[in-house]
Amino acid sequence: MTAPSAVKAALTSQSIETPSWAYGNSGTRFKVFAQEGVPRTPREKLDDAAQVHRYTGVAPTVALHIPWDRVDDYAALAGYAEDQGLRIGAINSNTFQDDDYRLGSVCHPDATVRRKALDHLLECVDIMDATGSRDLKLWFADGTNYPGQDDVRSRQDRLAEALDAVYARLGDDQRLLLEYKFFEPAFYSTDVPDWGTAYAHCLRLGPKAEVVVDTGHHAPGTNIEFIVAVLLREGKLGGFDFNSRFYADDDLMVGAADPFQLFRIMYEVVRGGGFTSDVAFMLDQCHNIEPKIQAIIRSVMNVQEATAKALLVDRDALGVAQAEGDVLGANAVLMDAFNTDVRPLLAEVREEQGLAPDPIAAFRASGWAERIRTERVGGQQAGWGA
Amino acid sequence: MTAPSAVKAALTSQSIETPSWAYGNSGTRFKVFAQEGVPRTPREKLDDAAQVHRYTGVAPTVALHIPWDRVDDYAALAGYAEDQGLRIGAINSNTFQDDDYRLGSVCHPDATVRRKALDHLLECVDIMDATGSRDLKLWFADGTNYPGQDDVRSRQDRLAEALDAVYARLGDDQRLLLEYKFFEPAFYSTDVPDWGTAYAHCLRLGPKAEVVVDTGHHAPGTNIEFIVAVLLREGKLGGFDFNSRFYADDDLMVGAADPFQLFRIMYEVVRGGGFTSDVAFMLDQCHNIEPKIQAIIRSVMNVQEATAKALLVDRDALGVAQAEGDVLGANAVLMDAFNTDVRPLLAEVREEQGLAPDPIAAFRASGWAERIRTERVGGQQAGWGA
Amino acid sequence: MTAPSAVKAALTSQSIETPSWAYGNSGTRFKVFAQEGVPRTPREKLDDAAQVHRYTGVAPTVALHIPWDRVDDYAALAGYAEDQGLRIGAINSNTFQDDDYRLGSVCHPDATVRRKALDHLLECVDIMDATGSRDLKLWFADGTNYPGQDDVRSRQDRLAEALDAVYARLGDDQRLLLEYKFFEPAFYSTDVPDWGTAYAHCLRLGPKAEVVVDTGHHAPGTNIEFIVAVLLREGKLGGFDFNSRFYADDDLMVGAADPFQLFRIMYEVVRGGGFTSDVAFMLDQCHNIEPKIQAIIRSVMNVQEATAKALLVDRDALGVAQAEGDVLGANAVLMDAFNTDVRPLLAEVREEQGLAPDPIAAFRASGWAERIRTERVGGQQAGWGA
Amino acid sequence: MTAPSAVKAALTSQSIETPSWAYGNSGTRFKVFAQEGVPRTPREKLDDAAQVHRYTGVAPTVALHIPWDRVDDYAALAGYAEDQGLRIGAINSNTFQDDDYRLGSVCHPDATVRRKALDHLLECVDIMDATGSRDLKLWFADGTNYPGQDDVRSRQDRLAEALDAVYARLGDDQRLLLEYKFFEPAFYSTDVPDWGTAYAHCLRLGPKAEVVVDTGHHAPGTNIEFIVAVLLREGKLGGFDFNSRFYADDDLMVGAADPFQLFRIMYEVVRGGGFTSDVAFMLDQCHNIEPKIQAIIRSVMNVQEATAKALLVDRDALGVAQAEGDVLGANAVLMDAFNTDVRPLLAEVREEQGLAPDPIAAFRASGWAERIRTERVGGQQAGWGA
Repeated sequence: MTAPSAVKAALTSQSIETPSWAYGNSGTRFKVFAQEGVPRTPREKLDDAAQVHRYTGVAPTVALHIPWDRVDDYAALAGYAEDQGLRIGAINSNTFQDDDYRLGSVCHPDATVRRKALDHLLECVDIMDATGSRDLKLWFADGTNYPGQDDVRSRQDRLAEALDAVYARLGDDQRLLLEYKFFEPAFYSTDVPDWGTAYAHCLRLGPKAEVVVDTGHHAPGTNIEFIVAVLLREGKLGGFDFNSRFYADDDLMVGAADPFQLFRIMYEVVRGGGFTSDVAFMLDQCHNIEPKIQAIIRSVMNVQEATAKALLVDRDALGVAQAEGDVLGANAVLMDAFNTDVRPLLAEVREEQGLAPDPIAAFRASGWAERIRTERVGGQQAGWGA
Repeated sequence: MTAPSAVKAALTSQSIETPSWAYGNSGTRFKVFAQEGVPRTPREKLDDAAQVHRYTGVAPTVALHIPWDRVDDYAALAGYAEDQGLRIGAINSNTFQDDDYRLGSVCHPDATVRRKALDHLLECVDIMDATGSRDLKLWFADGTNYPGQDDVRSRQDRLAEALDAVYARLGDDQRLLLEYKFFEPAFYSTDVPDWGTAYAHCLRLGPKAEVVVDTGHHAPGTNIEFIVAVLLREGKLGGFDFNSRFYADDDLMVGAADPFQLFRIMYEVVRGGGFTSDVAFMLDQCHNIEPKIQAIIRSVMNVQEATAKALLVDRDALGVAQAEGDVLGANAVLMDAFNTDVRPLLAEVREEQGLAPDPIAAFRASGWAERIRTERVGGQQAGWGA
Repeated sequence: MTAPSAVKAALTSQSIETPSWAYGNSGTRFKVFAQEGVPRTPREKLDDAAQVHRYTGVAPTVALHIPWDRVDDYAALAGYAEDQGLRIGAINSNTFQDDDYRLGSVCHPDATVRRKALDHLLECVDIMDATGSRDLKLWFADGTNYPGQDDVRSRQDRLAEALDAVYARLGDDQRLLLEYKFFEPAFYSTDVPDWGTAYAHCLRLGPKAEVVVDTGHHAPGTNIEFIVAVLLREGKLGGFDFNSRFYADDDLMVGAADPFQLFRIMYEVVRGGGFTSDVAFMLDQCHNIEPKIQAIIRSVMNVQEATAKALLVDRDALGVAQAEGDVLGANAVLMDAFNTDVRPLLAEVREEQGLAPDPIAAFRASGWAERIRTERVGGQQAGWGA
Repeated sequence: MTAPSAVKAALTSQSIETPSWAYGNSGTRFKVFAQEGVPRTPREKLDDAAQVHRYTGVAPTVALHIPWDRVDDYAALAGYAEDQGLRIGAINSNTFQDDDYRLGSVCHPDATVRRKALDHLLECVDIMDATGSRDLKLWFADGTNYPGQDDVRSRQDRLAEALDAVYARLGDDQRLLLEYKFFEPAFYSTDVPDWGTAYAHCLRLGPKAEVVVDTGHHAPGTNIEFIVAVLLREGKLGGFDFNSRFYADDDLMVGAADPFQLFRIMYEVVRGGGFTSDVAFMLDQCHNIEPKIQAIIRSVMNVQEATAKALLVDRDALGVAQAEGDVLGANAVLMDAFNTDVRPLLAEVREEQGLAPDPIAAFRASGWAERIRTERVGGQQAGWGA
């Protein structure tokens, strides 16, 4: 069994990235319920993210989404982040909200639209240069709604062309992380619908291109931890977009729908060396009805708890049972770790870092939520549209 | 085999209701792509619906959605519809777009919110009285996103209380149609998630309450025609919300994703007598990227084609094969009807009614699309929010 | 929060029924892997079941499956069970393994086959009389593989006729438990595919007819605890067939695939009073590759652990948070119970009953597995076919 | 639009392989319903396959399954096939029916078992040499039922090792076709669960390794034609195992569940050049309740009809509509081909080849079914176990 001190050390070194957009309003196609106190500017998002890092100690980076976080001076924004104890994480592109993108972006049948989309992607690399961001995270909403609407295969050719151009623009220490998604907003075909498609493109592109696993982007029943294990084995796992779902891409708090699945995923990460490599652990969630900062703190804690359990797996005992073909014994070793209540351990870890043992309670006691409700009045709240 | 004349007569008598909101803008949580020429008022929606009826001859009623179609004088709106050769169809309630409804409407934990929602439902019955509408169609977005968020069972009690009050308000010739939906916008529990729940409530309510089957509202793999057959057998099928889907509630044009399924559904309708009873055949779709009026005409035609094929099934031969346990023979009888190209038959039916044989071509030639693009400039386009 | 003593008392009074067939061989359509030591007779199955009860203390009844457990003298079999400290639980009918049932049993198009199937069901009630069993559990494999193969609605009529006849035969203290299943072995339509269909039949039949929820018999994504809550509210939940699944009806050990789901189900049972009523908690699993007795002990323990967590939910605090619309607070109350490690509590409960704290270890130490491997040589091992 | 003569020529040149095992008995884990007249030997299977080819004209090859089709002299078996106007198609390995394979075959934790499995695969290549078969089709039932049971990643290493050894053994004109499957018989993890995994292995192996798409082996909702398009684009589509499904791997007659999907798949094949390359079109079905030879003839016809419709797509018009972003126009071009009744065209094609226009009727009239029921009495019927 892993020594408790090693488990603690690993937990202390963990880093979970929070997304700027999760601090803003979000919703479904039916309704966006605005919440009081929601940030109105990228800096206010960073202010909220600093709270999450303050109480958890493991959320030092914040992902940006362009154009939702567009500013005139990105270096200044990075400086502001630094002042709050944060760094800029992945830059997320957006090629789905201009009217031009009705039929796609880099896969659009019209070369003019494709060029526009590509220019946006290249702009994102500029922003990476300005902010010191390492990762360009690409999610394409491209796809079709009706059979025959467009030529599925030609769209792959167009996609490849755009990815090649972006890849060529990357600096030495920059990565292209390609995300796949089963469906939505396209309802018949999606141009990067599964890990296989993302993997094939990343393989062609080269070592700086890796696959992102969004835990909510799979067909029902998909064994996500298998994909994680295979991508790690192939050296192509760039990172995670964490969230959870019961149905489709529900974007609930990670660990809320199936904590056992999250544990299994984290176990494959630990087993595959992903925890000590450059795999990025990012959240990508929508807090449609619950308070956002608290929900993000809870999500960070859920990842921590799953990680702690994964680290606690007695891998020696597990290996012995597996080698012996002891089905129940091997399963029991895994379940023993999962069934352990790791909250006391994490409380210890936090206290050893000088943090409050219960981040949620500490945040609630801080008055931050009340303060932003009072102060952030007027202006345009941040959301997916701005 | 059904005589061609009987098939034609049945097709001529068919009536398919189009929804006012399908003429307006719609989209996904990621983006609503506005289209030029989209109606700005309920009357303009009726104008477009009149076009659909003009070229298909089988779409004489239009469903309203309150508050999206709120007007000062509903009787006048009904009169306007009549002037266009239309009637007002089902009244659809909306208890999901006020900020108060963040945690539900008639199932909300707070009695004040429940009362507000109920008042809206009762207002909808008032509108039925004013417009001569027969059906109140209730779809509740109510549900929860997180386990424990609310008490699932208490929410059923609250739902029952509201439904009882609405039912008591119905006039003699009015019906309450209760719709179920697997998920969305709620992502953990939905208060009316399946036909069983809707059926149990309708059974308690009484004969004026019936279940609506939205073809996009089921778990993956669900055999919808079975549900249709069972509800018809129980005398509880109130109608359909037609659309099609590959994944979740995609709201694509009916028949676009799985025309064989639509045929099987229509076959159970024909076989169960639903075609000659008061089952309402309604569309409920989102034309996010395609031109709306054409898409609705196509949808109406798709329902007609599936109906024609269902009517063409040689039920005598089918019965014989089924009784003999001739699996392949019985299947072949059904497939023979499905594989028949019924487009010539429908062209004949239209021509016998004095209509153009190809509604899409006739509409395209009419210049209506160009006209509304030119005329409907300025103002606020209709959409889900208004 | 429920007092620990009350939780312990509830856990002590819990009763989980094991199925005779789970002690025999099982497999997939690809292969049945025989295991050494598997029972060859109903008595040997009872011997194994007695071991499970011996080490868990909560498994005093054993379900039989006819004809797999056919004996000449059922009263004698019941006596033998009693000698082992057991009672006969539910009688399970089998109308799917005779060649006559190729196209169905009680729903078959041929009246002769239907009569044969009905006679078997009535025979099962005779066996209930002889063994003192309370519950007749009916699962029908009936369905069709191809559209058109048979008339879906007529099959409902035939099903109703058979159920009526069986219901009429029940004694005063006997129940008919109707099980539904999404699919398999039928691949197009299934005659009792969902809880709604089972519920409608049970409602018509009367108070002695109730629905059985097999946790593996649902469409992907189905919220099973919702169904449990609704059936309890309607007074129609007869019991559970517990198992777990990642994909279809995998029949894995209950709690092995999604322990959080099992907890949520048990919470609705507790909340709905099902734990103190006559809801039957039965296992229905296939231990295709793992040792059977140990797997069943583990399954019983998994149900116990989920129950303990459900009992530990602080329902007062939960109710307050729910009433206040505190989404995260209410969820946290539920998760707090789930995250608790209840294994020490259950060890205490066992020790207070004079049992070993770790049933698996105690069974392994007992030598029973080695003994049956040695003694049960020759003869015909029990399986699904015999 | 493709000229009718070109369509006919393409249809005439089509070749659909039937599997020897589909002529034998099959079933579910619940029951195998034996049918009268079923073959008892590989030669009798070839006799039945010859009937399928005789009436369809497009089924000249038969896939073998080892050991189900094990004979002493494979060259003689190939000669017998030739005498019936047939050739031996793909050789299918079986590493799932020996007791040793309880925990896997080439991925088993025990090297001895892995060696045994590998030897079997190499034996299959010997049989290819002896029979002139071009393709080795590998489907591995390997996987695990419980989390932790074995190390998912190590199993990939073992798989890779075995595949490397087999690949090295292939002759110049031989191919290794790797099949993936979502689940079953493994219920937690499957070692080749998706096209991405199969693709990654084939890529490493080299040009003689290609992926097989079994149309029943995907997660719910998967867009199979997308995978087909991508694999063709990558030059890695080796062939199809055709069948259809409503739920899991139902193995129904191809085209029976979703004929529109089959058409879309065949369209991508035509569009991607797969129809004129070495893509193998194979059936892999289970005729559990329907007469087998007729079901296979029907399946061949279904593939032909889908192919004919795919060939009829007006690709010029489609390309224009796609380039213009005309969503409804492009969809209409595709649907026009699908809605065409191609049965008269196929009847013509058959008559031009000297075949009866209706293969099913011709087979029924031939008396073959009656003859084998009379003659094939006694002996051991072929099935999955022998």
